[in-house]
Amino acid sequence: MEPIYEGKAKRLFTTDNPNELLMEFKDDATAFNGEKKSSFAEKGRLNLDLSCLIFDELAKQGIATHHIKRLDETRLLVKKVDIIPLEVVIRNVVAGSLHKRLGYDEGHVLDAPLVEYYYKRDDLGDPMLTLDHIAILDVATDAELKTISELGLQVNEFLIGFFGNSGIRLIDFKLEFGRDTDGSILLADEISPDNCRLWDATSGERLDKDRFRRDLGDLLDGYREILGRLQGQS
Amino acid sequence: MEPIYEGKAKRLFTTDNPNELLMEFKDDATAFNGEKKSSFAEKGRLNLDLSCLIFDELAKQGIATHHIKRLDETRLLVKKVDIIPLEVVIRNVVAGSLHKRLGYDEGHVLDAPLVEYYYKRDDLGDPMLTLDHIAILDVATDAELKTISELGLQVNEFLIGFFGNSGIRLIDFKLEFGRDTDGSILLADEISPDNCRLWDATSGERLDKDRFRRDLGDLLDGYREILGRLQGQS
Repeated sequence: MEPIYEGKAKRLFTTDNPNELLMEFKDDATAFNGEKKSSFAEKGRLNLDLSCLIFDELAKQGIATHHIKRLDETRLLVKKVDIIPLEVVIRNVVAGSLHKRLGYDEGHVLDAPLVEYYYKRDDLGDPMLTLDHIAILDVATDAELKTISELGLQVNEFLIGFFGNSGIRLIDFKLEFGRDTDGSILLADEISPDNCRLWDATSGERLDKDRFRRDLGDLLDGYREILGRLQGQS
Repeated sequence: MEPIYEGKAKRLFTTDNPNELLMEFKDDATAFNGEKKSSFAEKGRLNLDLSCLIFDELAKQGIATHHIKRLDETRLLVKKVDIIPLEVVIRNVVAGSLHKRLGYDEGHVLDAPLVEYYYKRDDLGDPMLTLDHIAILDVATDAELKTISELGLQVNEFLIGFFGNSGIRLIDFKLEFGRDTDGSILLADEISPDNCRLWDATSGERLDKDRFRRDLGDLLDGYREILGRLQGQS
């Protein structure tokens, strides 16, 4: 069966139900817009483990997501949504591109969470957008952006506590949203160490994909550490 | 005498009056954050000619600027201001980095003028900022940003007509603002083909620094063409 979409870390397939899709988590890891690539056996399963665990917790908080049910180690049944082509980045602490943008040291704690939007366009290198750019591109209405930013901040507040209870600091993370068949906004994509920066609260050790981006240690050791700690509390 | 500040195209010197500075226009041209460099005899004088002509017209429109008086071919007396470290870019038509950010063709006409802010930090590569980034950096208050954006749009509206009367399209341009000793916002820096995109309204010929950036013809021929046309009408 051919995927209808293949991203850097996931593949999407149609199902017999036109409102549902099958999402397969791959073992591939990429960084710097695909310039650095590798593959790690079990990464797909670990990310799906983590993403399901987190989306289940979010569902308990009343946050609507595209998850329906897990089918096996690497495949998930999801609601078919019209993905809004924005990467919504929520930041609590300066790291990554924000360090280069503001000139603040990595680790500088922000006074309040910061929401940034990036245009989900690999061919353009996922550039940052202002609200005015988003209005020009007409990819989301003002009302949708308000919902997205409120949901993003709600997810952030919950996850800070959820990771915090396991001795993990949530530095920043990326969300994607989609429109359901009736136009409501659902949290989509995944939440995993592929798109979160997660630091050990005591040692500051990077447990996320920065291990791969910056050669800071075995990638999956970090992912397993996060999963183990979260499973211990859930 | 040592300059108190040396930029890519200008030098600033103190004067006997602590509230006034001397601004010298250099013949240097740089592009791509200094990666491409050259020097063009008479460029400093041409840019000062153009900048004075435009700032004089803006003064007639009641727009407060830092200009006091021209001293000679390349030197200008200006009010000493506390420069706000933002490059304020106003765009009417897609070109340059906006083409790469939105994926729209160069020449696409925007429905309304777009205001963008870039952090004036050569060491960081002058990155784009959202209003939230500006609030974090605390480089301008909300009230100052409102004034800056209103002034920018007012300058844009006037310049579209002013250049338009000479058969020149104002595609986009960059402004800088400063705080006077009493805290009021003044238009500072220069307005010249170094920081405006100006296209011939009929042929689309580039008359601005893109000639240098993209090797589109003799740089100063474009600058002289603009000056000649504007002097013909003022």
